[in-house]
Amino acid sequence: MKGRIFSGMQPSGKFHLGNYLGALENWVKLQHEYECFFCIVDWHALTSSYEDTRKIPQNIHDMALDWLSAGLDPERNTIFVQSHVKEHAELHLLLSMMTPLSWLERVPTYKDKLQQLGAQGKEINTYGFLGYPELMTADIILYKADTVPVGEDQLPHLELAREITRRFNNLYGPIFPEPKASLSQAPVLPGLDGRKMSKSYGNEISFSAGPEEIREKVRMMVTDPQRIKKTDLGHPDVCTVFTFHKLFNAEHAVQIEKDCRSAQIGCVECKKRLAERMVDMLADVHTRRLALERNPGRIKEILDYGAERARKVAAATMQEVNKALHLMG
Amino acid sequence: MKGRIFSGMQPSGKFHLGNYLGALENWVKLQHEYECFFCIVDWHALTSSYEDTRKIPQNIHDMALDWLSAGLDPERNTIFVQSHVKEHAELHLLLSMMTPLSWLERVPTYKDKLQQLGAQGKEINTYGFLGYPELMTADIILYKADTVPVGEDQLPHLELAREITRRFNNLYGPIFPEPKASLSQAPVLPGLDGRKMSKSYGNEISFSAGPEEIREKVRMMVTDPQRIKKTDLGHPDVCTVFTFHKLFNAEHAVQIEKDCRSAQIGCVECKKRLAERMVDMLADVHTRRLALERNPGRIKEILDYGAERARKVAAATMQEVNKALHLMG
Repeated sequence: MKGRIFSGMQPSGKFHLGNYLGALENWVKLQHEYECFFCIVDWHALTSSYEDTRKIPQNIHDMALDWLSAGLDPERNTIFVQSHVKEHAELHLLLSMMTPLSWLERVPTYKDKLQQLGAQGKEINTYGFLGYPELMTADIILYKADTVPVGEDQLPHLELAREITRRFNNLYGPIFPEPKASLSQAPVLPGLDGRKMSKSYGNEISFSAGPEEIREKVRMMVTDPQRIKKTDLGHPDVCTVFTFHKLFNAEHAVQIEKDCRSAQIGCVECKKRLAERMVDMLADVHTRRLALERNPGRIKEILDYGAERARKVAAATMQEVNKALHLMG
Repeated sequence: MKGRIFSGMQPSGKFHLGNYLGALENWVKLQHEYECFFCIVDWHALTSSYEDTRKIPQNIHDMALDWLSAGLDPERNTIFVQSHVKEHAELHLLLSMMTPLSWLERVPTYKDKLQQLGAQGKEINTYGFLGYPELMTADIILYKADTVPVGEDQLPHLELAREITRRFNNLYGPIFPEPKASLSQAPVLPGLDGRKMSKSYGNEISFSAGPEEIREKVRMMVTDPQRIKKTDLGHPDVCTVFTFHKLFNAEHAVQIEKDCRSAQIGCVECKKRLAERMVDMLADVHTRRLALERNPGRIKEILDYGAERARKVAAATMQEVNKALHLMG
């Protein structure tokens, strides 16, 4: 094992294929190289949507189902929900005491996101929203994770987490490793219409789509608009279907590109090949999902088991922390 | 019982008699009228002194000893240490998500105290220091306390606690009573030299002083500086000993004032009477203290017992809160 990873996602509804490629696919690989803590960070979800929390339970369930279907192994990894492990809140509170306010205020994404969500009419200028990176720091170091897979946009948060960790270690002793970023460059998957795949555009393929739905969605995909007849030469570089081939059918992409440019293959056939390839690639995901859906109590069992495992590690860390801070009574 | 009280004190070393009169004496009365939660708020102590926490365990022990000696009954009340009940941190985190930053920034004492402690060279402009009233709110409502005994200086914090409570109830349902202030007007006890009693002036009588120490300290007290001979007429209104008579020997104060003004009583005799009266009044306190000191494990036992009681109430509240926020998985 190369080290210990902590990574979390906010429970924000079912994944589409873009989300899967963006992060989850990477996790599925990482689980073989690192000891991993994968956390559904429901408390974080409150930072931007505390006003209506009714969807949280369903979102947690859907997210766990997506993760497990993708192939995250609940024995190999610790898979759990943040609010099930109270130590996240305890460490967050302790870190808050020694974190200069200015460190949080100057996080570049802070003012941006405030403005952006404010424009959507969300009142989120709260104490907790400012403390978002503080809670994220607690999440990571509670498990003494040394590695955090992040996208570029999360780098300022991780830099702050490292700074808070150094400050803690300087004040109270070297308890925590400084977590380092493992930068993952996720491909951006276009939606059916060629724009970015997003639920708000209604152009997504759900990560839970079965074979029929995949075939149906691929049929609907926008192709080269200048290719009207099958004998027209194609332009794969502007074709969404071809972008999908590169991501899901890499080994045949060169041939397909050639055949499209020379009108050796028509769009209907090209889509069929893509669809079958995607159905094949996602066959295991689909099988795992069906098995989990047949066993409604299983997700809860897995999350309970994960919480128990996480709590053991978290409690050991907090014992060390409280001893270092002379809070052991 | 008139209702439920929560009140806390930061563990900041042994009490002097001024501290006792200022708050603890009131608590001893309140325990007969209210169901009381008395909490040693060690996490709060970190807001202003996170840099050196070595004295916290001793300070907690000394504070518990002072409280119990004063006559707080660990059966009648729930007496405990904040950090032993993790739910304080959990509720604090949840409240943080819905508390506008501006509410905390505008607390009048916030900028004052920041400046004041900054002038003493303390770097306390931290996220946690800003969140002080948020944590205080969590402390109070976690036990659904409806009454909080406060001094005038704490009123803005309590007003904010009420505001946060209302906001929570509006968002998630009427879970918490709005805590109301029970304003206590504590007498200000002068020190031996007539200035305010304070450890930093070295003019205090310790709350743990036994009979001999009380007599010795009273002998050292400054009296009317214009009364040099016993036959000089006294001026009780400028005499520290007389201020003490009013507080500790109220029923004889009128007579003593008369006798002092007419030089019927000398300072030595006047001090003797005061000292004996104080020794009498504090006899039970002293007896209880000696008994506790003979039994070194007792304080820990009492605090463990209190934490267990507190946790039961706290856990029930958090179950309700988490249900209301749909955080029950």
